[in-house]
Amino acid sequence: MTTSTTNATMTVDEAASLAAAAAPHLAASSPSTRAAWLEAVADALDRRVTELVALADEESHLGTTRLTGEVARTTGQLRLFAAVLGDGAFLEVVIDHADAAATPPKPELRRMLRPTGPVAVFSASNFPFAFSVAGGDTASALAAGCPVIVKAHSAHPRLSRLTAEIVIEALHDAGAPEGSFALVEGRDQGTALVQHPAITAVGFTGSLAGGRALFDLASRRPAPIPFYGELGSTNPVVITAAALQGDRAAVLARGLAGSFTLGVGQFCTNPGLVLVPAGSGFAELVAEAANGTAAGRMLTPGIADAYQSGAARAAAHPGVRTLLGGDAEAPQSGVATVLATTAATVLEDPEVLLEEIFGPATLIIEYADESELHAVLAAVGGALTATVHAAPDEDVTELVSRLEPLAGRVLFGGWPTGVAVGWAQHHGGPWPATTSLHTSVGATAVRRFQRPIVYQDTPERVLPEALHESNPLRLPRRIDGVLELPA
Amino acid sequence: MTTSTTNATMTVDEAASLAAAAAPHLAASSPSTRAAWLEAVADALDRRVTELVALADEESHLGTTRLTGEVARTTGQLRLFAAVLGDGAFLEVVIDHADAAATPPKPELRRMLRPTGPVAVFSASNFPFAFSVAGGDTASALAAGCPVIVKAHSAHPRLSRLTAEIVIEALHDAGAPEGSFALVEGRDQGTALVQHPAITAVGFTGSLAGGRALFDLASRRPAPIPFYGELGSTNPVVITAAALQGDRAAVLARGLAGSFTLGVGQFCTNPGLVLVPAGSGFAELVAEAANGTAAGRMLTPGIADAYQSGAARAAAHPGVRTLLGGDAEAPQSGVATVLATTAATVLEDPEVLLEEIFGPATLIIEYADESELHAVLAAVGGALTATVHAAPDEDVTELVSRLEPLAGRVLFGGWPTGVAVGWAQHHGGPWPATTSLHTSVGATAVRRFQRPIVYQDTPERVLPEALHESNPLRLPRRIDGVLELPA
Repeated sequence: MTTSTTNATMTVDEAASLAAAAAPHLAASSPSTRAAWLEAVADALDRRVTELVALADEESHLGTTRLTGEVARTTGQLRLFAAVLGDGAFLEVVIDHADAAATPPKPELRRMLRPTGPVAVFSASNFPFAFSVAGGDTASALAAGCPVIVKAHSAHPRLSRLTAEIVIEALHDAGAPEGSFALVEGRDQGTALVQHPAITAVGFTGSLAGGRALFDLASRRPAPIPFYGELGSTNPVVITAAALQGDRAAVLARGLAGSFTLGVGQFCTNPGLVLVPAGSGFAELVAEAANGTAAGRMLTPGIADAYQSGAARAAAHPGVRTLLGGDAEAPQSGVATVLATTAATVLEDPEVLLEEIFGPATLIIEYADESELHAVLAAVGGALTATVHAAPDEDVTELVSRLEPLAGRVLFGGWPTGVAVGWAQHHGGPWPATTSLHTSVGATAVRRFQRPIVYQDTPERVLPEALHESNPLRLPRRIDGVLELPA
Repeated sequence: MTTSTTNATMTVDEAASLAAAAAPHLAASSPSTRAAWLEAVADALDRRVTELVALADEESHLGTTRLTGEVARTTGQLRLFAAVLGDGAFLEVVIDHADAAATPPKPELRRMLRPTGPVAVFSASNFPFAFSVAGGDTASALAAGCPVIVKAHSAHPRLSRLTAEIVIEALHDAGAPEGSFALVEGRDQGTALVQHPAITAVGFTGSLAGGRALFDLASRRPAPIPFYGELGSTNPVVITAAALQGDRAAVLARGLAGSFTLGVGQFCTNPGLVLVPAGSGFAELVAEAANGTAAGRMLTPGIADAYQSGAARAAAHPGVRTLLGGDAEAPQSGVATVLATTAATVLEDPEVLLEEIFGPATLIIEYADESELHAVLAAVGGALTATVHAAPDEDVTELVSRLEPLAGRVLFGGWPTGVAVGWAQHHGGPWPATTSLHTSVGATAVRRFQRPIVYQDTPERVLPEALHESNPLRLPRRIDGVLELPA
């Protein structure tokens, strides 16, 4: 499978002691050096795309088209963080010159962000590339200058090993220190990783239950460390009456059906709760549009079982109608499910009915009036996204003000699946969507693994190059309170 | 004491429900509006400085000179955050324009940071103004657009109430929404505050034990929230042999004596561990310089008791010499203590000897060679500061690389007490110095209470003004990947 003789998998103790030894070397590397490492990893993954996709499809059943796109997304992320390094704003250089005349006299202060040290990354089942071994957490931690130890996901062990071998070889060939990257496997190793004293932060994408358990481990350490987790999301969608006028209802129904069944519904941005006006008949249109969607094979037997029991539990709830769904014929397959109920029913039992069902299911919630709509939104937990479908000239200011507190991304039109890679992107939201303010997606992912350090009255020969007065790295800087761009 | 009829103290439930109601109004306020609120609070505190200082001195015994300076520092902090609001970079506006030709097509994304919601602030005993009711946590949370509920410190209840009344009146007169600020008192109320569902983050300055307990409460909530704590610090100082040449030894000894006894040693930046070459006689010089320092009255009987028992415990340790110290004659007073030992002794029992003693004490640790110095530094916990005293032309690169991982501020020359207020300042460090990457000091204090939100394909009439294409607020922005300053 690979020409490398590197053994990609090791024990936590081995990996952590190599990472701790590598950390000062990574911290001393220049941003442009690390950008070259990230580019090298991206290029190596792109070169091996056919082999990677074939193996990923064997293990994940997500299909070669989707997986080929996901490799491109993953290498795009690596290159975005290389661009972040090239830009230099991520170092947040701030210089206050000395002022001996001030009362009290002000010392010279030169501040920047520095890497925290070795980072643990837990990869996800549903994105075997983009949120896995070489995904956003790994890319942003390496960009920050932190060694990375990935805990492989058990749903794609062979792909994890191959990806790790490619990453290790590319980093080695590009001159990165030994210990910059390692892979560990197994639940016990994951637990040991979060608790290892050398680890300074954890990145995680996965289930609410698994994430909460690791968050608790990270918080209960003798020296607690930050846990950056993305855990679960229902992604509420609100459709107004005006949005359903004319033939728009059928268009929206087809759009929703395409979004919630995409990738067998195994996206954290799956639109799981859709609020529509009562009497609109929208739920029936969605069922019609989703009818005939082939039941796809889900990632693992466990995920398929959880999907079927979650959908069955909601369907069996008094007041919930099943418009589409049923038992899977093939093992491990996910049949599209469309459920419908009223806002009043949801408000009687929000804990059950507003829970995420991970898979190709959506619950259409019919609201009688604005106050019911607002009451349901107040009961929805934090989410990655919130979507509005309204008529072009409709006043939705009030509605948006109720969606903003719920989610990290607010969409007008469109559907939440599909998360563009770019500087402005954000993928996060209040608990339980994420545990933290910034996540593995978007340029600020880097800052999770950086801490400020300020040098007071320090001779230039001792300072990092980024803080030299002449600005040799051509960084954006704040000088005596004023933000300045390099000439 | 005040002309206001406002009752500054209320229950957590009252305060939290007012804060939750105020939150959307604060979130909708413009940065310049909030800057005016902060200026109004600063002006009101400055106008009442005499009255505030008198009351603070009655409760804290810190003296009117120090306390008058601390009011100036506090209003300086409020005005710094007003300047942060005026600058606008804190909103981190990032705009990626749509690209319909991309594969897949890219939507328009407009991103900024938005306030998280109501914030709890626990004030400190040792800074009754600057890290208390109207201190850096409060100033930065209000700047971010978050309502604040302060838990008063029991060491200065009357000052807390007066300060709160002044803050509430100033905010009210400046037009801030009711519920923007409240004060609660008592340990039970503090516990309830951290656990209240409306609270989105906690700021804390205080002891390691108290901070850990509240951190655990915040982490164990059904929906965990971030706990931004500053807990304790030993602030190691390393003095090289070359730095002690000639009359420099006596100068450094006097400087250290002045720093560790300042404010009866009740500073989180107190230089508690000082590493010097064995045989330098430096410890004796420090004892001589500190001899005769008047025993000041400490903040509370509990702090005085903890200081005396902590100093006695270290002094009684085999291998530790007491060069200065003794029992206090007046109740609640802190007598300067100078202890000395060897690096070898410290390495036998680092947990006891490297523990912070809060008060006017310093432990001089004599190292025989570089390897002993490095071994002690490896055993020191995270700290707010690390200081180097070396000769001007000495190569200290290796030493600095060992200090950087320990602390958030590295000083050359000088002493760590005294934390200048400014854009470049940082006051934090690895556990147990702080629990988080950014703290209440410095311009990035604001970002602890902001979360990213991105608007996808959203009509301008619904967007916050900060995200309008024409840049009406004249903000620094990143447009399609390029950082731009307002013309």
